Amino acid sequence: MIGLGTVGTGVARILLEQKELLKTRTSLDFNLKTIVELDWSKDRNLDLSQVNCTTDADTLLEDPEINVVIETIGGYEPAFTFISKALKNRKHVVTANKALIATKGMELYKMAQENGVDFLFEASVGGGIPIIKSLREGLVANRFESIYGILNGTTNYILTKMHQKGLDFADALKGAQEKGFAEADPTLDISGGDAAHKLAILSTIASNSFIPFDKIYLEGITEITKLDISFAQSFGMTIKLLAIYKRSEEGVDLRVHPTLIDNSHLLAAVSNELNAIFVKGDFVGDTMFYGPGAGERPTASAIVSDIVDLSRDLLLQEGEKYCNRAISLTQNVRLIPIEDVKSRFYLRFMTLDKPGVLSKISGVLADNNISISSMVQLESHEKDNYVPIVLLTHEALEKSMEQALQKILKFDFVKDDFLRLRIFEE
Amino acid sequence: MIGLGTVGTGVARILLEQKELLKTRTSLDFNLKTIVELDWSKDRNLDLSQVNCTTDADTLLEDPEINVVIETIGGYEPAFTFISKALKNRKHVVTANKALIATKGMELYKMAQENGVDFLFEASVGGGIPIIKSLREGLVANRFESIYGILNGTTNYILTKMHQKGLDFADALKGAQEKGFAEADPTLDISGGDAAHKLAILSTIASNSFIPFDKIYLEGITEITKLDISFAQSFGMTIKLLAIYKRSEEGVDLRVHPTLIDNSHLLAAVSNELNAIFVKGDFVGDTMFYGPGAGERPTASAIVSDIVDLSRDLLLQEGEKYCNRAISLTQNVRLIPIEDVKSRFYLRFMTLDKPGVLSKISGVLADNNISISSMVQLESHEKDNYVPIVLLTHEALEKSMEQALQKILKFDFVKDDFLRLRIFEE
Repeated sequence: MIGLGTVGTGVARILLEQKELLKTRTSLDFNLKTIVELDWSKDRNLDLSQVNCTTDADTLLEDPEINVVIETIGGYEPAFTFISKALKNRKHVVTANKALIATKGMELYKMAQENGVDFLFEASVGGGIPIIKSLREGLVANRFESIYGILNGTTNYILTKMHQKGLDFADALKGAQEKGFAEADPTLDISGGDAAHKLAILSTIASNSFIPFDKIYLEGITEITKLDISFAQSFGMTIKLLAIYKRSEEGVDLRVHPTLIDNSHLLAAVSNELNAIFVKGDFVGDTMFYGPGAGERPTASAIVSDIVDLSRDLLLQEGEKYCNRAISLTQNVRLIPIEDVKSRFYLRFMTLDKPGVLSKISGVLADNNISISSMVQLESHEKDNYVPIVLLTHEALEKSMEQALQKILKFDFVKDDFLRLRIFEE
Repeated sequence: MIGLGTVGTGVARILLEQKELLKTRTSLDFNLKTIVELDWSKDRNLDLSQVNCTTDADTLLEDPEINVVIETIGGYEPAFTFISKALKNRKHVVTANKALIATKGMELYKMAQENGVDFLFEASVGGGIPIIKSLREGLVANRFESIYGILNGTTNYILTKMHQKGLDFADALKGAQEKGFAEADPTLDISGGDAAHKLAILSTIASNSFIPFDKIYLEGITEITKLDISFAQSFGMTIKLLAIYKRSEEGVDLRVHPTLIDNSHLLAAVSNELNAIFVKGDFVGDTMFYGPGAGERPTASAIVSDIVDLSRDLLLQEGEKYCNRAISLTQNVRLIPIEDVKSRFYLRFMTLDKPGVLSKISGVLADNNISISSMVQLESHEKDNYVPIVLLTHEALEKSMEQALQKILKFDFVKDDFLRLRIFEE
C-alpha cells in the first residue's frame, strides 16, 4: 500500500483486524506486506510489527512477491507515476483516487489491459456504497436509463445546514469547515467538480462508452441564498446538488447542478454528509443505493472489497480477467449539449416594487415559449425597495431560457442578483 | 431453464433481448438452450425459435452441454427434485425460490459443494436489489451489526394503503388482491413468513452461520386496525413490517414484526410494493439498498446477474469456486430468545371509561419495571362505552411486558381486543 493517511489507515486496519473474518469468508489469507509513507511520526493506533514500513515506493513497486498495489495518497502526482509503474510491473491496482480516474482514467485502463492486470476503484464513488459493483455486476442485465443522486458529501452537508438552520452559504461553509466536513480550500467540492468526477466514472461504466469528465455541464452551490432555500421549502421542495445521467435515443445528458426536488422523493431526505444514488435500469426499474460517501472506514471497506475481488482474478488466466469489468476506451455515445436539454426551472429575481414588472417578465417568458406553473411575490423588507419574485416554470428548453434571461436581466427594474435553478422531474 | 411463468419469461427476455449488451459487458455469449415448461399454450411475446422448448425436465438435466440450470417454478416440489438432480449432475443452479432455500437450503448447499458446483439465489431476497452480492462482496470487509428492512412487498403495499386511505386491514388486503399485489391465499405474506424466509437467507450470509428459518420470531400484520395507524401517525410514526437482524455479544436477535418507525427514518418513506434494506457494518457504517422486491423484470435482472457471475466460475478450477460465496453449514451463533430482547412498546387497550383505569394499568406496568414515555386517551365514540388508551413505553424486556399484559388483560374494564407493537430504535 502506498499512503497511510486517513484512508490508508482504514485499509490497514481492516487487513490486520479483520484477517480472520476475511479468511472465513473467502478461504484466503490477505497479507499486507509493505506500506510506503513519508511521515511515520504519527501514531495511528495500528500494530504494524508484521508490516514492512518504508518511505521508498520502489521497495514495493519492484517486489515480485506483491500482486496488488493499493494507492491511497490521492491527487495527481506522484499517484499517477506510482500507479503507472505498478501496472507496468504487472501488479493489480486498487485506488479511491476519483480525480485521477476522471482525468487520466483512460490512460490507466489501457495500461492495465496491456499488462494483463486489473485496475479497480470501487471507493472512488459513493465511499462505502458498492455502487460500481452494483452497476457492473448486480445490475449487469440492464441498460441504464438514468442514474442520479447526491455524490458529494461536503455540499450535501452544507445544503442540509442551510435548510435546517436557515444559514446563508458562506456561514454554512464555515460551519462545515469547522466540523471537518469541508476542506480549507473547498473549491473542488462546492463547484460541483468532485461530483462531476464521480459522475464521469459512473457514466463510463453505465454507458459502456468513455465519458470525458470535462464534457459534463457543471454548476456549483455558491450562488444559493437562504432566501432561495426558504422559497424551495415553501413549494414543498429541497435543494440538493444532483449529478444526473440520462440516456435517450438522442444520446446522453450529463449534468451536475443544484436542483429543487420534491420532499416526497427519497433523495430529499438524504441529509448531512450522506450520499445516495438512484439507478433506473430497463429491467430492474428504480433502485437506490445509500450510505456514507467518504471517511476512513467506509472508503477502506470499499477498497478491501476490490482487493477480495482481485483475489479471484489471481486464480484466472490472462485474458479472462475482465469478465464484466471491461471499460470502453472509446466515446461511442453522443453527449447532448446543455442547450438542447429540457427542464422545469426555478427563477428568482429581485425587482423594483412597481406596476407592470410581472407582466413584462412573464411576457418575455411567453415570447420564448416558457410557461409559468406558479409564482410568488413577497412584500418588500429591503431598504432599497427591491422585492423577490419567484417563478416556477413548466418544462422548457435551456436555450429558450437563456434567451429569455438575457432579455429580462436588461430590464432596469431587475437587479443582476438573480438565481436560476432546475427542478427535478423523473 | 425450468419454468416459463412470470419470472422465467423475464429471464428468457433478458437472455434473448440483451444478448448483445451482455456480450459487450462480459465478452461472453450466453445461450439459452432449453426451456422446460408444462404449459406452452400461453403467448409470452418471446421469439423462442432458437430455443429447445420441451415439457421433459430430463432433456435439460441430462444434457452434458448445459452448465447452468435456472429454476423458476417456485414451491417445494418438484423444484427440490429438479435442483437436486441438476447439482448431482454437476450443473450450477440459479434460483429465486426463497421458501425452498430457507427450508431446504442447507441440504442444497451441501449437495452443491460435494459436486463442485455453485448454487446462487440473488433474486430470492429483495427482487432486483443486489443485496446478497452486496453483503457477500461489496461489504465483505465488514462484520454486520444489524440488517433490517422491508422485505415483503405485499404487506408494505397493504400497510401503505392503510396509512394513505385510512383503511382497515381487511379492506386494504382486498384492494391489494384486486390489483395483483397480494395472492388469493395471502397467508405466507401477511403472517410475516415470507419476510422471515428472506431474513433467514440474509442472516445466514451475514453471520457466517446457518440460521434456521423456524427459529425466527414472527408476527404478522393482521391485527393492525385503522385506529392503530391513526395513533401511529399522531406520534409522527409509520407502521411497517420490519425484518430485523441484530448482532451483539450475547448473540443474534432475529425478528419479523410490525414496527412503529419515526417518520424521519428513510424506511418510513418506502411505500407500496417497494423493498428497502438497511445494513450496518462495522467499517462501512449505515447503508441502504432500495428497489422493487418482486415482479417479472426485476427478479429476472437478479437471476441474470447470478448467471453472469457463474460464467466466471466456469473459468475457475474446482475448489476455487467459492471465493466469498461460502455458506456455513453449521449454526455457530447463539440466537437470543425473544423473552430476553428489549424494545420500546406501543400498547393500545380498549377500556371502560371510568375512574381509576389508567392508574391501575400504569401501576401494573410500573410493577414490571416498564416506564411510560407518552399516553393518549380518546373520548368515547363507541356505543359500548369502551375508549382506546394508547401508551408508548421506554425500553423494556419482552418477558416483563408479557407478564404485565397478562395482568392487565385480566382487569374487567379491559377488552380482549388490544394491540402491542414494538417501536424501532437504532
